[in-house]
Amino acid sequence: MTGTTLRELWDRGEDTLGGWCVIPSGFGAEMMGRCGFDWVCVDTQHGLIGYDQMAAMLQALSVTGTPALVRVPWNGPDHIMKALDAGAQGVIVPMVNTAEDARRAVGAAKYPPLGTRSWGPIRASLDVPGYSAELANGRTVVAAMIETPDGVRNLDEILSVPGVDAVYIGPSDLALGHGMTPTLNVTEPEHERLIKAILDGCKKHGVVAGIHCDRYETVRRWRDLGFQMFAMASDAALMRGAATAAIQEFRQGRPQRTAPQGGGGYA
Amino acid sequence: MTGTTLRELWDRGEDTLGGWCVIPSGFGAEMMGRCGFDWVCVDTQHGLIGYDQMAAMLQALSVTGTPALVRVPWNGPDHIMKALDAGAQGVIVPMVNTAEDARRAVGAAKYPPLGTRSWGPIRASLDVPGYSAELANGRTVVAAMIETPDGVRNLDEILSVPGVDAVYIGPSDLALGHGMTPTLNVTEPEHERLIKAILDGCKKHGVVAGIHCDRYETVRRWRDLGFQMFAMASDAALMRGAATAAIQEFRQGRPQRTAPQGGGGYA
Amino acid sequence: MTGTTLRELWDRGEDTLGGWCVIPSGFGAEMMGRCGFDWVCVDTQHGLIGYDQMAAMLQALSVTGTPALVRVPWNGPDHIMKALDAGAQGVIVPMVNTAEDARRAVGAAKYPPLGTRSWGPIRASLDVPGYSAELANGRTVVAAMIETPDGVRNLDEILSVPGVDAVYIGPSDLALGHGMTPTLNVTEPEHERLIKAILDGCKKHGVVAGIHCDRYETVRRWRDLGFQMFAMASDAALMRGAATAAIQEFRQGRPQRTAPQGGGGYA
Amino acid sequence: MTGTTLRELWDRGEDTLGGWCVIPSGFGAEMMGRCGFDWVCVDTQHGLIGYDQMAAMLQALSVTGTPALVRVPWNGPDHIMKALDAGAQGVIVPMVNTAEDARRAVGAAKYPPLGTRSWGPIRASLDVPGYSAELANGRTVVAAMIETPDGVRNLDEILSVPGVDAVYIGPSDLALGHGMTPTLNVTEPEHERLIKAILDGCKKHGVVAGIHCDRYETVRRWRDLGFQMFAMASDAALMRGAATAAIQEFRQGRPQRTAPQGGGGYA
Amino acid sequence: MTGTTLRELWDRGEDTLGGWCVIPSGFGAEMMGRCGFDWVCVDTQHGLIGYDQMAAMLQALSVTGTPALVRVPWNGPDHIMKALDAGAQGVIVPMVNTAEDARRAVGAAKYPPLGTRSWGPIRASLDVPGYSAELANGRTVVAAMIETPDGVRNLDEILSVPGVDAVYIGPSDLALGHGMTPTLNVTEPEHERLIKAILDGCKKHGVVAGIHCDRYETVRRWRDLGFQMFAMASDAALMRGAATAAIQEFRQGRPQRTAPQGGGGYA
Amino acid sequence: MTGTTLRELWDRGEDTLGGWCVIPSGFGAEMMGRCGFDWVCVDTQHGLIGYDQMAAMLQALSVTGTPALVRVPWNGPDHIMKALDAGAQGVIVPMVNTAEDARRAVGAAKYPPLGTRSWGPIRASLDVPGYSAELANGRTVVAAMIETPDGVRNLDEILSVPGVDAVYIGPSDLALGHGMTPTLNVTEPEHERLIKAILDGCKKHGVVAGIHCDRYETVRRWRDLGFQMFAMASDAALMRGAATAAIQEFRQGRPQRTAPQGGGGYA
Repeated sequence: MTGTTLRELWDRGEDTLGGWCVIPSGFGAEMMGRCGFDWVCVDTQHGLIGYDQMAAMLQALSVTGTPALVRVPWNGPDHIMKALDAGAQGVIVPMVNTAEDARRAVGAAKYPPLGTRSWGPIRASLDVPGYSAELANGRTVVAAMIETPDGVRNLDEILSVPGVDAVYIGPSDLALGHGMTPTLNVTEPEHERLIKAILDGCKKHGVVAGIHCDRYETVRRWRDLGFQMFAMASDAALMRGAATAAIQEFRQGRPQRTAPQGGGGYA
Repeated sequence: MTGTTLRELWDRGEDTLGGWCVIPSGFGAEMMGRCGFDWVCVDTQHGLIGYDQMAAMLQALSVTGTPALVRVPWNGPDHIMKALDAGAQGVIVPMVNTAEDARRAVGAAKYPPLGTRSWGPIRASLDVPGYSAELANGRTVVAAMIETPDGVRNLDEILSVPGVDAVYIGPSDLALGHGMTPTLNVTEPEHERLIKAILDGCKKHGVVAGIHCDRYETVRRWRDLGFQMFAMASDAALMRGAATAAIQEFRQGRPQRTAPQGGGGYA
Repeated sequence: MTGTTLRELWDRGEDTLGGWCVIPSGFGAEMMGRCGFDWVCVDTQHGLIGYDQMAAMLQALSVTGTPALVRVPWNGPDHIMKALDAGAQGVIVPMVNTAEDARRAVGAAKYPPLGTRSWGPIRASLDVPGYSAELANGRTVVAAMIETPDGVRNLDEILSVPGVDAVYIGPSDLALGHGMTPTLNVTEPEHERLIKAILDGCKKHGVVAGIHCDRYETVRRWRDLGFQMFAMASDAALMRGAATAAIQEFRQGRPQRTAPQGGGGYA
Repeated sequence: MTGTTLRELWDRGEDTLGGWCVIPSGFGAEMMGRCGFDWVCVDTQHGLIGYDQMAAMLQALSVTGTPALVRVPWNGPDHIMKALDAGAQGVIVPMVNTAEDARRAVGAAKYPPLGTRSWGPIRASLDVPGYSAELANGRTVVAAMIETPDGVRNLDEILSVPGVDAVYIGPSDLALGHGMTPTLNVTEPEHERLIKAILDGCKKHGVVAGIHCDRYETVRRWRDLGFQMFAMASDAALMRGAATAAIQEFRQGRPQRTAPQGGGGYA
Repeated sequence: MTGTTLRELWDRGEDTLGGWCVIPSGFGAEMMGRCGFDWVCVDTQHGLIGYDQMAAMLQALSVTGTPALVRVPWNGPDHIMKALDAGAQGVIVPMVNTAEDARRAVGAAKYPPLGTRSWGPIRASLDVPGYSAELANGRTVVAAMIETPDGVRNLDEILSVPGVDAVYIGPSDLALGHGMTPTLNVTEPEHERLIKAILDGCKKHGVVAGIHCDRYETVRRWRDLGFQMFAMASDAALMRGAATAAIQEFRQGRPQRTAPQGGGGYA
Repeated sequence: MTGTTLRELWDRGEDTLGGWCVIPSGFGAEMMGRCGFDWVCVDTQHGLIGYDQMAAMLQALSVTGTPALVRVPWNGPDHIMKALDAGAQGVIVPMVNTAEDARRAVGAAKYPPLGTRSWGPIRASLDVPGYSAELANGRTVVAAMIETPDGVRNLDEILSVPGVDAVYIGPSDLALGHGMTPTLNVTEPEHERLIKAILDGCKKHGVVAGIHCDRYETVRRWRDLGFQMFAMASDAALMRGAATAAIQEFRQGRPQRTAPQGGGGYA
């Protein structure tokens, strides 16, 4: 199913909320894709997802028309090209630390002359009328993760690499690499300072700024500053959070405002 | 990992809340098993789950020590025996309409002399010291679904069949079969009357009464009447409910009390 | 993706050509679904396809909007209900030999009051606005295979069972059961006579007549007589036929008119 | 099943036609392997195939005795060694652009002293009596893809690397990298010139020349020039081509010479 | 790969030893198939194996040419026909208790006129030149398990059913159903008496007698009496037995005669 | 299930015997995990195991509490991080030839400040109370394979890299790279000399010395010299060794001392 691409949403200046899949399941991905997110990311870095499941999940997301991204396990052309061929609209690439890293990521994601992506859009071309190298390059999104001291240090050069559509900040790795405790709930001033510095770089270079979040308040905080790309919770976290609330209700014998209402499956 | 069995929980008179899996994923099942439910059911009737995934999910639930049940697709010895051999502590058997149906279910679930289950506890015996036919018969749970007009009509005979540990009411089918709209949220007096009649039968025969629910209020309603076995929401429903709340927050720009707090995955 | 249902196509009086999947692959099914068939059948009887692959294939067919049928391995409520819950628009049921067999098939495929299908449309309801028991009963197709001497003998009674939408003739089994060699290429007069008798029964009862074919000439032959539902070749047969033609070209050093033109994949 | 190896076929000077698998299915691969191709390639670069499916497909191809190749996703020792250990007779390595790339590919594919392949022929040794490092090095085929401007530029050096058995041209990437539209149907003079230049290099260095094709005419064209290794269509392309022809027949009401004859599966 | 069928081995009067697979893995099955057993059984009753894995395992066994049997989970036409279509040479059918049960099993396994097997030998026909209903009926083996009091009682009638090639005794179920402890190591006189009675019945009716064993001594004991079909240990039992011996050696610091010699894998 | 870690076993000075999995199966891994090994390695280098199966196997090993290692296919951060995230306690890294290689392996396996492992312990943290970067770094094991001439040459530098917990010698590759025949049964003086040199280096640097073995005698030989980490046979080798012994017994008509006693599965 063809719809508006993520690149088009960003070009319109829209803020976008993503779903985040770590459970290896085509059906799970379809469920996430039907919720109404602006995009859904199949996380093959920290999710429990390998290639075969990723491919099934991208197929499942096609049913729903939601733009699908893949976070690749590492900045390698094999990972990036296979994700895009299988139908992802873009890739989130971990640990982009240098301009060379950024060029490597873009190179794998874009066809010549912008890059060196090999021609073989086995599922990528299926719902894209007039699919061509040029058209594909225009709609394929590369989000570079800036999440290490090197990445911060080389921010300006990284953001100068043509073809970097977005930066996606991993707050946990950013903290850990700078000697802080990994967390999505940013409280340390230094942690916040790093995030803002990256945001400033993005604004300067006209690159979409994205960040991984843990709850609505965090999303709002960064959105107010100008971020445009957010993920709020993984499928597993949503499920566990809601299940835990339900169990608490049951154990304590009184309803929780945070527990889910309705939708009990079938019996 | 061995722990308290579901049969033991019921013998202690405890009310039990179950998790309900419809997503075919070993990792998803492990996540559900780690939430703290009293039992988790792998739903191979209406869940999108076949045998191979069911087996992986039962293995995953073993990691967590949570008693695992399987709702079989139908009252057949193949389905029941394979689920139990693979490590389920019990089965939920749909559409038990007659005493003969009940005998058929119990027959498949219990070894001689109680039934005709074939000997081959390939995973069932793994964490059960001194596993024997007798011991297995004592800890294996059969929950018969009473959910049709025939089932209600033959209630007394069904409940008289030795080896029926519990009744699990499917409110939707019960409604549909009696000419009402399928729902877990019981509002029609006739619907409620049917449920209470089944409950009364259970009490009379000393059989645990269970029912599929859609939210805490529903659980509480039935629990107050004496039900002991509840499922509140499937993995997919929990996930979708929480995701929907999160998206609403984002779209409306203000927090929802029902949205999950914390737990954003990793980045 | 929602589109015109198969039931609607038939109601309009259209002749319908189906694709036939025997290769267990979600991607293969998506490819078949994108070819332009009126419907695609996932053959879990003689195809090498079990439940888990069937579910993935139904998901894949959803991407394409092509109505999906499942040929179940046998006339059992477990097979029929699980196929429909997973998103099939209908079932092709093998070896319907008696009115009782037909009632059994319809009973599993239709919700009360028409049948006893259990409520749990986990994927079936996803793209059907206002999904209800009544709506589902109206769009769910049951095609009974008449393919044995008993089936022919009881034709009239079988076709009188409410809820039988179509008959799907298996010419091979029909031949084999009547002492002839199994074939889709009907040359024996007695074989033809049996097929025409079934067709006459369908016309009399207003039931759609379908038949499994092996090539265009066979389709045309039956279509001219009034059949409305045809499958012409399985995915594996199409692939092998085209590959064999290609290899002949290569070995003989000259083009075959029957070999495929264009479409060489990617390199 | 042991048979003549691809290396032996080439040593005899035979032209070889390959089947090309992009559908992730062991059964699909077995079907392709039974068609009579000289070799079958499991395409894990642009095919929708990951490791687990590749391994099943190599096992399936063993049933048929057809030499199996794997196109690896990228020139990495992990991809190459795992494909060979799982039973591939050789690898097709994308984007070999420099002599260093070629040495890297050969290094991963050959045991010492020719390379640094790690010893662990878990399936590779199964049907090879007297399997040894030396014997394996002799029968394992490395086909380097020359398909970029750099590759063309460094052709002579690449072909001088010992252990490069064949070149496999990817016409689409070759075109794209040189500023032309990607196609297997070579019409641009510059495109043809590049291909001929590569062929000349192969002849000079005694390396087998191979090329990806889209139809018989293309195969013949290159075969007449001295190419020895061809793939003509993928499993998916063969299936879709034949299905499309069948549908056209049905829609237009008259037979197509290009449609498959016979082989309708079973019913 | 085609070889001597199991039916032919029995017709020659040979005693046959089978491998027994309970681990769901195509590679595991191939390993078992390469050991030199006369047949290998894929146990889908008590093994942890569902349809999709069974199909992959039958494909894997084809590589080795070893006749493959499937123990079906239950005496149902779906299970039997799908196993045979996928390439099994025969089925072992649990709990055949009556002549009607036997006719049901044979009916599903044999084409008309002997039975009602549906025509669709998708893999069954692949390596059988001139495959036809008659030829298939001659080479397809049905082994009925006599393992219950009813089965013993109706022995003579069961063995009179045409098409029952063999009886396969399940000593554990036989013991359990007669009030004894389930075991393959037959020590109780009554247990032995039952087994001998079944053997006598087989001899009288010219049916091959088979029995499940736990060690060589047990095999020899029954072989001396005239049994012709034995399985000695499952893949999992072989693996665990050998691993346990290896661990004992290590813990005790001295070699065990029962521990495996050589074959340490690769490193 | 949490238990003693492998790091703790080594810190206590214990010799440790590992199980070695090459069969891709969660159930197979669970069986190996239940045998009593000190650790079990999922071999994704030479085993027939890809990511999806590896993840299922690590989950299965969690049931048993046995420390799980993964041999990665190659020294890449994608392979190492994904194995650890999925729950492995450590990695065995092939072909560590230089100090740079060792730093690369340690860098991927350890969080900052020791390395650059990305934060996302999706299963790694599940049974580790108080999981933190520091705690994880302390319990995660890196075993570098020294198995090439370069590795031997750079031994001292490699062992000086902080974070290398163990060396795991691959005798076959070590032999092959030095011009000898690959074998685990070390008879050539030069082969032995190399192994002893590596052992001496380990002792000097306080690094655990491990080696892949083929039988008890080999284990004892190296254990007497001071090695602490051994694998003796893979799941497939154990199974095949025991099966072969069983078949020999049957063919020769007399028991073998090396054949397994008892444990015949179920029937």
